[in-house]
Amino acid sequence: MQNAKLSLSGVIAPIPTPFDAAGEIQFEALAQNLQRWNQSDLRGYVVLGSNGEGVYLDQEEKVRVWDSARQLIPSDKLLLAGTGCESTRETIALTRRAADVGADAALVVTPHYYGPKMTGDGLIQHYQAVADASPIPVLIYNVPKFTGVNMDAAAVARASQHLNIVGIKDTSGNITQLADTVRQADPEFQLLAGSAGFFFTGLAVGAVGGILALANIAPEPMLELYRLFLDKQWEAAADLQRRIIPVNGAITGRFGIAGLKAAMDMLGYYGGPVRSPLPQITESERQVLKTILIEGGILT
Amino acid sequence: MQNAKLSLSGVIAPIPTPFDAAGEIQFEALAQNLQRWNQSDLRGYVVLGSNGEGVYLDQEEKVRVWDSARQLIPSDKLLLAGTGCESTRETIALTRRAADVGADAALVVTPHYYGPKMTGDGLIQHYQAVADASPIPVLIYNVPKFTGVNMDAAAVARASQHLNIVGIKDTSGNITQLADTVRQADPEFQLLAGSAGFFFTGLAVGAVGGILALANIAPEPMLELYRLFLDKQWEAAADLQRRIIPVNGAITGRFGIAGLKAAMDMLGYYGGPVRSPLPQITESERQVLKTILIEGGILT
Amino acid sequence: MQNAKLSLSGVIAPIPTPFDAAGEIQFEALAQNLQRWNQSDLRGYVVLGSNGEGVYLDQEEKVRVWDSARQLIPSDKLLLAGTGCESTRETIALTRRAADVGADAALVVTPHYYGPKMTGDGLIQHYQAVADASPIPVLIYNVPKFTGVNMDAAAVARASQHLNIVGIKDTSGNITQLADTVRQADPEFQLLAGSAGFFFTGLAVGAVGGILALANIAPEPMLELYRLFLDKQWEAAADLQRRIIPVNGAITGRFGIAGLKAAMDMLGYYGGPVRSPLPQITESERQVLKTILIEGGILT
Amino acid sequence: MQNAKLSLSGVIAPIPTPFDAAGEIQFEALAQNLQRWNQSDLRGYVVLGSNGEGVYLDQEEKVRVWDSARQLIPSDKLLLAGTGCESTRETIALTRRAADVGADAALVVTPHYYGPKMTGDGLIQHYQAVADASPIPVLIYNVPKFTGVNMDAAAVARASQHLNIVGIKDTSGNITQLADTVRQADPEFQLLAGSAGFFFTGLAVGAVGGILALANIAPEPMLELYRLFLDKQWEAAADLQRRIIPVNGAITGRFGIAGLKAAMDMLGYYGGPVRSPLPQITESERQVLKTILIEGGILT
Repeated sequence: MQNAKLSLSGVIAPIPTPFDAAGEIQFEALAQNLQRWNQSDLRGYVVLGSNGEGVYLDQEEKVRVWDSARQLIPSDKLLLAGTGCESTRETIALTRRAADVGADAALVVTPHYYGPKMTGDGLIQHYQAVADASPIPVLIYNVPKFTGVNMDAAAVARASQHLNIVGIKDTSGNITQLADTVRQADPEFQLLAGSAGFFFTGLAVGAVGGILALANIAPEPMLELYRLFLDKQWEAAADLQRRIIPVNGAITGRFGIAGLKAAMDMLGYYGGPVRSPLPQITESERQVLKTILIEGGILT
Repeated sequence: MQNAKLSLSGVIAPIPTPFDAAGEIQFEALAQNLQRWNQSDLRGYVVLGSNGEGVYLDQEEKVRVWDSARQLIPSDKLLLAGTGCESTRETIALTRRAADVGADAALVVTPHYYGPKMTGDGLIQHYQAVADASPIPVLIYNVPKFTGVNMDAAAVARASQHLNIVGIKDTSGNITQLADTVRQADPEFQLLAGSAGFFFTGLAVGAVGGILALANIAPEPMLELYRLFLDKQWEAAADLQRRIIPVNGAITGRFGIAGLKAAMDMLGYYGGPVRSPLPQITESERQVLKTILIEGGILT
Repeated sequence: MQNAKLSLSGVIAPIPTPFDAAGEIQFEALAQNLQRWNQSDLRGYVVLGSNGEGVYLDQEEKVRVWDSARQLIPSDKLLLAGTGCESTRETIALTRRAADVGADAALVVTPHYYGPKMTGDGLIQHYQAVADASPIPVLIYNVPKFTGVNMDAAAVARASQHLNIVGIKDTSGNITQLADTVRQADPEFQLLAGSAGFFFTGLAVGAVGGILALANIAPEPMLELYRLFLDKQWEAAADLQRRIIPVNGAITGRFGIAGLKAAMDMLGYYGGPVRSPLPQITESERQVLKTILIEGGILT
Repeated sequence: MQNAKLSLSGVIAPIPTPFDAAGEIQFEALAQNLQRWNQSDLRGYVVLGSNGEGVYLDQEEKVRVWDSARQLIPSDKLLLAGTGCESTRETIALTRRAADVGADAALVVTPHYYGPKMTGDGLIQHYQAVADASPIPVLIYNVPKFTGVNMDAAAVARASQHLNIVGIKDTSGNITQLADTVRQADPEFQLLAGSAGFFFTGLAVGAVGGILALANIAPEPMLELYRLFLDKQWEAAADLQRRIIPVNGAITGRFGIAGLKAAMDMLGYYGGPVRSPLPQITESERQVLKTILIEGGILT
């Protein structure tokens, strides 16, 4: 374990993993996407989080993707590796492998299969055990819409006392919980808003940044929102916040990752297909998405 | 129907209804509470909303309470009457009676018993029918935690086109939805945050005020938060927002209305018992609540 | 309070309330429907339960409907009045009025507006208070799909110790809970299956009968299923059970009460419109429903 | 793909995986447990389903456990391997490995991480793809309490048309859905009740057997219930059904797998600890469990 001071401030993109039609990882496409994102002021990347279809890669594939990404991500940008598995032991093993290939930190989703048993104390002990064993700092990843589990502010606060548990991506959208996390957690603990839909309000209650799917296709608007906030131009930030909601809704809730990838294709990135069993976007959905992107000023 | 321009900006208290141990309404206690609240800068009151145990009063009792409250509420403060019933026709009838005794507007909860059928179009038609028939402006009351029904931003926006539907109290805590309501709704439509837990962030995305249970026992901190926001003292507002969360949680979620009333008793208002079947607060819960009020700076 | 021995065994129809296009109660239509149902072996009727749109009638209307129905229901058939309100006091008052006009028992839905507070002890005390004050026996009505509240077997069992709490309509569809209710409750307590979808299995674990929306349009198949069960012709009963599922699904979940009423219209009863805000059935939905009724052998 | 006729009729135990305090698999304990179970008339075993903590083993461990179990399971008893992963491709790969070491069939849990996208068509295509590629028959595993996903009867029925999709374990407890699955599915398709709480009623609507956690600690009562059903002794079966509910509730919902393992320890099997992050049973919970086992006649 190292001293955990790692600044997460800014905008981080949870990048999708490029596949071809057979579902094989396209490393060249990953490189091209990263080279373009690297030109922005993004603080870094989550590699193999929910948007990266991390649950669809086997452990060897995961390590190869992190390794490859690390070659392409400059050292001043963060590589956060999505290393959470259901068991504590497998999470530790995978986190160590991510560290070995150069990940800056691990983003560890709450275990959730036995959801009714995944309550405060058990979750805290899981994160403490992972953090004890991890060579790199650990972030909690709270995403109830996928896990059915919510780690509340009190539990997060207790976990935050561990020197190697340095932050949380909270995707719940429960802004009261985000504010309460800032209130209760260790002062050094860093809160990251988990969706562009509440990036501004997350910052307003004390988040230091965001991990935002929308940053994949619209890094500049996300960075602009962040700068407006830092510059105390709140009315402008609120206005931008409101404007990006429909686009964000389309590539997260409504069309999901298939929509995010389709948007990337439209914008000159490599998006490509999703792995099965996620359904591909249909042609009619693609047209709706295109209209939303144009209306949102993302696509011209 | 009148021209609907009615300013809802500011802090509104959804007041509890005083009962004695037998469950009888205590009008004198209501008067005493209102006289004290009237000395503050509260914009007005919701009478017989969720915190007023409105569902526990029969229709004649409701009219008597509104009538009595109107005598005690100065004309420059709002009386919003909670008039929503399950049927459109009964909601209209009750709204007219509220108007007859001087209510400034009606706060109409989403019908919800047949929840799976209470979707966009049906809800919109309900509100349009009520607004057509109502002599006073109508506000939507969206409170999924009690109703199991959520009226989304798109449906609210369509309802907002009606001249006599002037605003919404949104208690969902879904800050993305609040922001999206402001984006999509008619520019004259007024959004009110429905809980002190997200009052500040609600304002930040465009709410004009809040209807806040916490304003019953802590009107000054709520008014202070509102003023800090208007004065663009955002860090101070965010700090105050975070500090009031545990107190607000105690008198809403954790101990509910029985807790709110117990807090009022501690603070020199008349709180008193709740009507059955709501459970009374226990003595040990009362002690916990007292500690939370002291730690929150509400009780000294 | 009387001695509570009232046999609920058999098939009970929770009848819809006839309205005209303006939403006015059609008493003549109610009479005609009842005269036809009376010719069957139905054990009785629930008047103003969920299928009766009870929440859409005001208290005076309710009493008039019960009074009118009682004139038309022979004394050997039961009139169960849906008298549950949110408050204990209003439930008691309405139950007494139902008793005054001749209801045989009261079917009291779990209070639910303050759902998170409607837990075991509070619910039990509510039912005990109502049963203490009621001149007629009381049945619990557990219907989580509408209330969001589930009264579990342990709580029901405790309530069942009261001499005047004689049974439950359980609509949860949780067959383990139904079996456990029989196991834990007082031996005299009577369990009624709350939907035709699990009438047979409810009987199999100890229910004495059912309160079944489907009995409104298909009393004979429901009575046939009941007789098959009593005659221990289980394979035939199971077969009939499976066959009626799609029809039952159509008039409960999918098209709801508007569908039930449309089916009644097709079958020569008076169905008519639902009260607002329930949406009327559309013409295309009516066609789908007709096909389902024909395929299910209900309509020829 | 082979011809899929494989009889699943009877009682199948979804066995737990023995670990030591360090979380290492105890193969000798597995052998001892199986030798004892083998003396009963159990139809077979699920190895590495939910009760086997399958999500906590890595892929190599899984294959070793199946391989080891196959050596110990006589050829006239079934080995169903829990092979479901989130991705279609990994599920196929793991199913092939299970087949290689002698599994008779694969029990494939519904993918669920991207729950809102795991709807009818996507799920059907997933199962078809797995069944196309699998050398052994495939069973669907529907367990909403852990996955948040429910595969409804219509979707199951469509999947059942595939010759290599031979059955389903439905743990939903929705008895109407179980009956409807029998009605809609291919006549050769075999339904298995997923919990002892509704084993009898599942059989009554057409299930051919059950996969029952309770069979691990009480195989004889489960086999007795099955025989009573086949012998048309329904009242006795219903009575036994009701009596086993509290024991079953204790080792599934209330205390979960840690409770199941503790019960095994009390009964002379090897139970042992659960893997982290599942919490171990506490000493006071163990005492409560013991009382329940004694009252249920499982422990003397």
